Amino acid sequence: MASRSIRLAVVPGDGIGPEVVAEGLKVLDALGLTIEQTVYELGATYWHKTGEALPDATLEEIRGHDAILLGAVGDPSVPSGVLERGLLLKLRFELDHYINLRPVRLYPGVATPLAGVRSEDIDMMVVREGTEGPYAGAGGVLRRGTPQEIATQESVNTAFGVERTVRYAFELAARRPRKKLTLVHKNNVLVYAGDLWSRTVDAVAQEFPDIEVDYCHVDAATMFFVSQPQRFDVIVTDNLFGDIITDLGAAVAGGIGLAASGNLNPSGSAPSMFEPVHGSAPDIAGQGKADPTATVLSVGLLLDHLGFTTEARRVEQAVADDIIERQGAWAARSTQEAGDDLAERVTG
Amino acid sequence: MASRSIRLAVVPGDGIGPEVVAEGLKVLDALGLTIEQTVYELGATYWHKTGEALPDATLEEIRGHDAILLGAVGDPSVPSGVLERGLLLKLRFELDHYINLRPVRLYPGVATPLAGVRSEDIDMMVVREGTEGPYAGAGGVLRRGTPQEIATQESVNTAFGVERTVRYAFELAARRPRKKLTLVHKNNVLVYAGDLWSRTVDAVAQEFPDIEVDYCHVDAATMFFVSQPQRFDVIVTDNLFGDIITDLGAAVAGGIGLAASGNLNPSGSAPSMFEPVHGSAPDIAGQGKADPTATVLSVGLLLDHLGFTTEARRVEQAVADDIIERQGAWAARSTQEAGDDLAERVTG
Ligand SMILES: CC(C)[C@H](C(=O)O)[C@@H](O)C(=O)O
Ligand SMILES: CC(C)[C@H](C(=O)O)[C@@H](O)C(=O)O
Repeated sequence: MASRSIRLAVVPGDGIGPEVVAEGLKVLDALGLTIEQTVYELGATYWHKTGEALPDATLEEIRGHDAILLGAVGDPSVPSGVLERGLLLKLRFELDHYINLRPVRLYPGVATPLAGVRSEDIDMMVVREGTEGPYAGAGGVLRRGTPQEIATQESVNTAFGVERTVRYAFELAARRPRKKLTLVHKNNVLVYAGDLWSRTVDAVAQEFPDIEVDYCHVDAATMFFVSQPQRFDVIVTDNLFGDIITDLGAAVAGGIGLAASGNLNPSGSAPSMFEPVHGSAPDIAGQGKADPTATVLSVGLLLDHLGFTTEARRVEQAVADDIIERQGAWAARSTQEAGDDLAERVTG
Repeated sequence: MASRSIRLAVVPGDGIGPEVVAEGLKVLDALGLTIEQTVYELGATYWHKTGEALPDATLEEIRGHDAILLGAVGDPSVPSGVLERGLLLKLRFELDHYINLRPVRLYPGVATPLAGVRSEDIDMMVVREGTEGPYAGAGGVLRRGTPQEIATQESVNTAFGVERTVRYAFELAARRPRKKLTLVHKNNVLVYAGDLWSRTVDAVAQEFPDIEVDYCHVDAATMFFVSQPQRFDVIVTDNLFGDIITDLGAAVAGGIGLAASGNLNPSGSAPSMFEPVHGSAPDIAGQGKADPTATVLSVGLLLDHLGFTTEARRVEQAVADDIIERQGAWAARSTQEAGDDLAERVTG
C-alpha cells in the first residue's frame, strides 16, 4: 500500500478552474492524508505574461509528483489551440497519459435529459486512447489564405499505442460485473486505423474468453447513447471519438457538472493527471456558480489510481449521498458551499 | 421549370433497402410525374457474384440520369468498408456530391428520447461536406500485423471544397427565418483543418451580414444536441463530424426511421443522390418491418432539388399529416401499408 502522503502538482488553470480545484483540494484535505502540494499557475494569464504555455523546466518539476490535479484551461483571449495543444495536450503526451478514463454514470437522483431512462441504464466506463490518433498534431497547410489552400490532419495509430489501450480496457471489463467491451470506431471509412483497432481487439479478446466483445460505428454509438445507453459497459475508442462520445455521455448522465476524468499513465513512469471534463466556462467564472462535483469525482479517480481505495470509495459515496439529498436544489448552493458539504461528508 | 418527367437511377441495395425504395417509388408515382427509371442491382449480392462494387460502365450510365434514389448498402457477409467505399462513397465522390444535406427536424407527434423538448426546439439543417476531409481515403499502413504497425488516416481539406460548402450553408441560412449558422469543428485540436474552416466561415460571413454566425466544438455540439437543440438552425461541418452529429440528430428527432438525406451536386454537373440516413438493417430485412418514411422524405428532397417544389411540399405534408394521425400506432403497419398510406395522401 502507498504511503499516507501524496505529492500533488496542482494546475488550477483558467475561468472556473481555480474555483473547482479549491473545492477538490478541500475534500482531499478532509480525508486525513498528508498532501504536499505545489501550485503551478499555468494558463491564459501565464501565457499572456510569458508567451509560454508550459516551460520545459516546469514540466520537469511536475514530473516529480505522484499525481496532477488540473481545473480547466482556455480563455477567449488566447487563440484557439494554443493552450489546448501547448499545455493540456502537452502534459498528456509528454507524461504518456495513454489512457483517458472517463466514467459515464447516471447517479440516482440526477436528472437526465433522456426520458424514461433509469440510473442503472447508464453505467459505462469509456477508455479513450490519449496519446495518438488525430491528436498526434501531424498535418500541415499549403498555400494558406489562397484559393489553392490545402490543410491536412493526420491520424497516427500504432500497434503499440492501440494494444496497450485495448488491453487496459479488457482488464477493466474483466473487473466489472457485466464483462462487456465495445469497440467504437468508424472502420468502414477509416479503414487503415479501423482495421488496426479491430484486429487488436480480436487478438486481445483471445486472452479474455469471458468478455463479451461488440463493435459499434461511432455515428451509431451516438444514437445508442440516447436511445439505448444500457447497451454499453466498457467502451474502448480512439482519442477523437472518445472526446466526442464522452461529452455526449456527460450530457446524458446529467451534465458536465458531474463528469470526471483521469489521464492515466498506468506504467507509473510519470504522474497521472485528473481533471473534470468541463472547460473553463469564462462566462460564469468568479461567481461561485460552478459545480465542483466533477472535480471532486476526479479526486476520487486520483485516489483510486494511487491505491487509496478506501478514500476513493468515501469520496464517491459522499457525492452519491450528496446528490440524493440535494435533488432539485442545485442552484441554491455556491461552489464553496458544495465543497464544504462534500468535505464534511467524507470526514463524517 | 423542369419538364414534368424525371430520369431516375434506382439503387435499392441491401437488406431493407429494396423494401423502403419500393415505397419511395410508390409515392413518387402517385404524384403524376413521368418517372423513367433504371434499376441498378448493386450491393452485397452483386459484389459476391462479380467481385465488383461499382463497375465503371455502370457509373457512366448512372451519370445520364436526373437523380439517384438509393436505399441502403452493406451486409455482414461483405468485409467492412468494401461496399461503403467501393459503392456509396464512390458515387458521392465521383459525382461530386459535395453537399450532404441532412434535415434534423422533430415532427409534431413524434416521440423523442429527450424529456421536455417540443417539436419547435429541433429544426435544423446540417450541411455536411461530402467529398473530402477524413473521407478522402488517404492513409496507409506500415508493418501490418507486427508490433511495429503504424496505420494513418489523413484528412484532406481544400479551400475549394470548404468554401463551396460554407457558401451553400450561408445561402441556405439566408432563406430560413432564424438566419443562424453554426460551424461545428474541433479547431482547438485539428488546428490546420479547423483554421481553414474558421477562416472560410469568417470570410464568407462578410457577404451575409444578416446571418448570425456561431462556432461550436464537435464534442460540445453533441451535448447541446441533447440539452439545448434549439441552439442550432443551420450547421455547417466537415464530412466526419457531419456523419456523427446527423446520426445523433436522427436519434433526438425521433429515430433513424425518419432521417432523410440528399447528396447534392449543386453545380448540376452530375446527378444528385437521395437516401435515407439509416443502414441496410439486415436483421429486419424482408419482414415488412422497416419504416419507409425516411426514404419518402428523401424523395421529397429529390423533388425539391429538381425544382418540383409543389410536389416536394406535398410529400412533406403527407408525412407530417401521417405522423400526427398515426401517433403511437407505428408498429401496427407494415412497410407496404405505410407506403400505401403516404401515396394515398399525396394523391388526395
Ligand atoms: C480542451 C480539449 C483539447 C480537450 C480534448 O479535446 O481532449 C477536451 O475537450 C477534453 O475532452 O479533455
Ligand atoms: C455507410 C457510411 C459510409 C456512411 C457515411 O459514413 O457517410 C453512413 O454512415 C452515412 O452517414 O451515410
